[in-house]
Amino acid sequence: MSGSEPALTPVALVDEQLATVKFNSDGLVPVVTQDVATKQVLMMAWMNADTLRMTLTEGRMVYWSRSRKEVWRKGDTSGDRQFVREAFYDCDGDTLLFLVEQEGRGACHTGEVSCFYRKFG
Amino acid sequence: MSGSEPALTPVALVDEQLATVKFNSDGLVPVVTQDVATKQVLMMAWMNADTLRMTLTEGRMVYWSRSRKEVWRKGDTSGDRQFVREAFYDCDGDTLLFLVEQEGRGACHTGEVSCFYRKFG
Repeated sequence: MSGSEPALTPVALVDEQLATVKFNSDGLVPVVTQDVATKQVLMMAWMNADTLRMTLTEGRMVYWSRSRKEVWRKGDTSGDRQFVREAFYDCDGDTLLFLVEQEGRGACHTGEVSCFYRKFG
Repeated sequence: MSGSEPALTPVALVDEQLATVKFNSDGLVPVVTQDVATKQVLMMAWMNADTLRMTLTEGRMVYWSRSRKEVWRKGDTSGDRQFVREAFYDCDGDTLLFLVEQEGRGACHTGEVSCFYRKFG
């Protein structure tokens, strides 16, 4: 293992907190992912109850791919993994925010750091 | 008008950009709202095609309230308006990111600055 391998910092599962999360009719909750160092918003994706638990216990972002209908452990294919540093749920419990250490080139499959690289106006 | 009234900085409507935005089966697109100064993620809400155009042309965040099923011009009731400073659409065109100047106490109806004030773990 390289000395620069990012640390894994899992988050404790607290039943009361997890019970507050509301999933939509497809069983999914939207997740905003932000770079912990630069504060840049990297992407928005979805988790189901299983991948939320995986994300917290593994300390790596694990989404649910709506297009492929499968567990999407971010970076397993691209190498650009996301390591969880802080995790929040909102006032309504229907959106999550994760602050991550982004590995490699960035979050976007286009090669951009952030998926939000196109500006209106 | 007070000298501290925030400036309105509308964003030009560009047909090609607007055509890239994909709305879901309910005609809505998720919107992440971030404080332009602190980079704190304030909230996530939804817009339809009409409120997206209103937001860009007025320079103020105008959401679609899913619970009330009505136009939600943020701050008209609370006084805590959000002034658009930059607006982005993501690689898939199915999520928007707005950087705003947040007025007043903050974005959350609970009185917190950000809706993401509860931390997992």
